[in-house]
Amino acid sequence: MRSDLDRLMAEHEIDAFFIPETEGENVYRDYLTGGVHASPFILKKRGEAPILMVFGMEREEAAKSGLAVLTFEEIGRMELIGQYGRGTNAELTAFYQLLVERFDINGGVTLYGTANIQYTMRLMEIFQALQGKIQIIRDKAPDIFDVAAETKDASELEKMREVGKRTGAVMQMTRDWISTHRGENGQVVTAEGKPLTIGDVKRFLRLKLLEQGLEDGGVTIFAQGRDAGIPHSRGEENEILRPGESIVFDLFPRTIGGGYYHDMTRTWSLGFAREDVQQAYEQVLSVFHRSLEGIEIGQPTNQVDKEVCRLFEAAGHPTKMSTPKTHEGYVHSLGHGLGLRVHEAPAISQFAADSTVFKAGHVVTIEPGLYYPSKGYGVRIEDTVYLDENGQLINLTDCPYDLVVPLRG
Amino acid sequence: MRSDLDRLMAEHEIDAFFIPETEGENVYRDYLTGGVHASPFILKKRGEAPILMVFGMEREEAAKSGLAVLTFEEIGRMELIGQYGRGTNAELTAFYQLLVERFDINGGVTLYGTANIQYTMRLMEIFQALQGKIQIIRDKAPDIFDVAAETKDASELEKMREVGKRTGAVMQMTRDWISTHRGENGQVVTAEGKPLTIGDVKRFLRLKLLEQGLEDGGVTIFAQGRDAGIPHSRGEENEILRPGESIVFDLFPRTIGGGYYHDMTRTWSLGFAREDVQQAYEQVLSVFHRSLEGIEIGQPTNQVDKEVCRLFEAAGHPTKMSTPKTHEGYVHSLGHGLGLRVHEAPAISQFAADSTVFKAGHVVTIEPGLYYPSKGYGVRIEDTVYLDENGQLINLTDCPYDLVVPLRG
Repeated sequence: MRSDLDRLMAEHEIDAFFIPETEGENVYRDYLTGGVHASPFILKKRGEAPILMVFGMEREEAAKSGLAVLTFEEIGRMELIGQYGRGTNAELTAFYQLLVERFDINGGVTLYGTANIQYTMRLMEIFQALQGKIQIIRDKAPDIFDVAAETKDASELEKMREVGKRTGAVMQMTRDWISTHRGENGQVVTAEGKPLTIGDVKRFLRLKLLEQGLEDGGVTIFAQGRDAGIPHSRGEENEILRPGESIVFDLFPRTIGGGYYHDMTRTWSLGFAREDVQQAYEQVLSVFHRSLEGIEIGQPTNQVDKEVCRLFEAAGHPTKMSTPKTHEGYVHSLGHGLGLRVHEAPAISQFAADSTVFKAGHVVTIEPGLYYPSKGYGVRIEDTVYLDENGQLINLTDCPYDLVVPLRG
Repeated sequence: MRSDLDRLMAEHEIDAFFIPETEGENVYRDYLTGGVHASPFILKKRGEAPILMVFGMEREEAAKSGLAVLTFEEIGRMELIGQYGRGTNAELTAFYQLLVERFDINGGVTLYGTANIQYTMRLMEIFQALQGKIQIIRDKAPDIFDVAAETKDASELEKMREVGKRTGAVMQMTRDWISTHRGENGQVVTAEGKPLTIGDVKRFLRLKLLEQGLEDGGVTIFAQGRDAGIPHSRGEENEILRPGESIVFDLFPRTIGGGYYHDMTRTWSLGFAREDVQQAYEQVLSVFHRSLEGIEIGQPTNQVDKEVCRLFEAAGHPTKMSTPKTHEGYVHSLGHGLGLRVHEAPAISQFAADSTVFKAGHVVTIEPGLYYPSKGYGVRIEDTVYLDENGQLINLTDCPYDLVVPLRG
C-alpha cells in the first residue's frame, strides 16, 4: 500500500528518489499525486512528503495534489535553462546538482517513472558526474512501487469498486441494446433492416463509457467467431454481427484522464448458441468458479493456474503446461493484478515464482478461456476480484454471465 | 521523415536497434508500425524492414502493421520463460542472446521506446553481459526518431489535415452550442434557467470529439477568468460560465486509440467582452499574425519567439526575455512541433539553440498569449501550421478567431 513506501525505501536502502518531469503516462507520478494534469518533477526523501516542481504555468494543476509545490522559476532553474538550453546535458547536470545541494540529499538515490529509453540512458551518464555526493543505485525488481501498488488500501478499493460498478453497467447496457436487434438471413440487423457491425457496437459502448466518465483508449476487445479464438484480437470494425457466433467482449476502461482500471470479459452468442460453443462455455464457467475457490492468502498463484490447466486438460483441451507452443485450448495465464496499470503484480501464472502468493489487499483478474480459431470460436469469462484481510474474496464485477443474448423476433 | 531512418542510422553509426515489448504508450512503436493494438518487441537492422515479435495471442493485431511478425512461441522464448520466469534478468539475458545469434546482429546496437526507468536501468545491466558480440551505444540527442519525426511526409500530413478539420469542427460546434444559452444575473443559463458549468461544456465537447473519432484524454483546457490567466489550468468542472469573462479553450485531441494530434486554442468572451480583455485579445491576434509572417525555412526558431517578446514588450507587457521569473504578461514560448506526441521538435522558443531552424515538413503550433491572473484574465490564440517545401505556410486549423460568442436574449 501507499503507506508502505517509506518502510520499503528503508528495506531497499533508498534514501531519496526522483521522478523526472517527463510528459505522457506516468503511473508512478499518479500513484504519488493522486493524478494531476501536469508533468511535475518529484523529489521524495525517505520519511518526508514528496515535493513537486513545475514550470509556473502548471503550478495550480500541480497544487491540486495537496502536496508541496515549488516552481522552477523559484528554485532558479530558468537561469540554467537560459544559460545551457532546456534539457541539455549541461542543464540537467546543473539542475540535479542544484537539487542535491538545496535539499541536502545524501546516500542512495534512484529514479522512478516512465521515460524515453534514450532519456534514461542519458540521465545515467549525467548521474555519473554527481557520484560522491550521492550514490545512484538501481532498485531491485520488484521495485518499491511494484510492491506497494500490489496491495490496495481502502481509498483505492473504493475507487476500484466504483469503476467496476460503472463498467458492469456499460456491459449490461450494451447487452440490452444488442437485444433490441433481430436476426435476419444470418445477420443481426436493426428494426429498419440495416446490418449491425462491430464498429456500431463499439461506438455505442464508447458513448455509454463517456456517460459513465470512463475511457477505453480505443482498445476494447469485441471479437467474433474465428477472431474470438485469438485472445487479443480486437475485432474488425466493419464485420457484421452474426447470430450463433461466439463473441468475446473484454472491457477494461479507466476513469477519463487516468485513474484505476476495471477489467471484465463476457462471452456472448446472439440469438442462440452452437453446441460446441455452449459446451466450451460451460467448461470455462465451471473452471472460472473452481479457480475462485482456490484463492487463499499465502497460496502461490502458480498453483491456481496449474490447477486450471489440469482441469482443462482433463476435459481434453491442450494448455501451455503440456503444449508450450499451442495456439488452441487454454493458451494464456489465469489473471493479473490490476490498478493504475491494466497489468501489474501479481502474475497469476503457472510460470510465476513460488514466492508469488496471494495477499490480502490484492485486486486481480480471474479470466480462464478456451480458444479454437480453427473451429471458429473462442470463450473467455473474466471478473475482477478483491481479497480482503480475512481471506474473503469480494467480486468487484457485477454483471450476469449468460451466454445467449436474445434477439427480437 | 520515416524514410530517413536508415540514412540516420548510418549517420548515427547504429547497425541495429531494439524496441522492448513494454506496455502502454509508445510513440516509437507507433511510428514504425502505424499503430497496432499490441505490445510487440521490435528489431530493426539498418537497411532492413522492422520485424515484430509478439506472444501468439497478439499475432493478428501485430500483423495489421503490414510488417513481418514472429511469435515468441516460434522463436523459442516460451522455453526460456518456462526455465527462468518471464522478465527475470536470466530470461531477458537469454532472450537477447537468442536474438543476437538468430538474427546475426553485429556492431553498434541501441534501444528506443518508452519504458519504466527501472526497467531501462536493468536492461543496461543485462546488455553488459552481451558486450563483445554487440556494442550497446546511446544515440546522441536528438535521436534518429526525434530527427525523423520532426518533418512529416505526405501520408502523415494527410492524417494531420484530417484531425485538424475534425478538431476545428468540434470547437465550432461547441461555440454554436454555447450560443444557444443566455445570460442572466451574471451567469450563463439554459433555456430552462439552469446554470451552465465548465463540466457541462466538457461533457458536450467530449461527445462531439467521440462522434468525430477523437479523444482528449481528459486534459482539454477550458479555463475562465483568473484560471485563464494560468496557461495550463484546465478549468474547474463545477464553475458556472459568466458573461464577459475571458475563456481560454485549448483543444488538443488525437484519433481514438492513438495517432496524430491537433492543437488549437481560441479565447472567448460570452455575450460581451471587457475592455482590457478586448485590448489584450487584439494585441495577441496581431502578434499571432506577425509571427506567422516571420516563419521561413532556415530561420532560427528563437528569432521568431524573441520578436514576439519584443512586440509584447513594446506594448508594455513583461515577458520571459526581460523578466525570466514573471507569471504575468507573455510567460511561455511561442510553439512546438506536433505529431504522434503533443510536444516534439522543434521548440519555438527564445531558449532554443541557433541550430534549431524552421524546415520544410515541419508541423508546428503558433500560440502567443497574455496572462494576467491578478486582473482575472488570460488570452491565447493557437493554430497548427505546416511548412511546405516551397516555404509556404499552410494552416491546418480551420476555425474563426472571434472573441465574443453571442448569447441569446
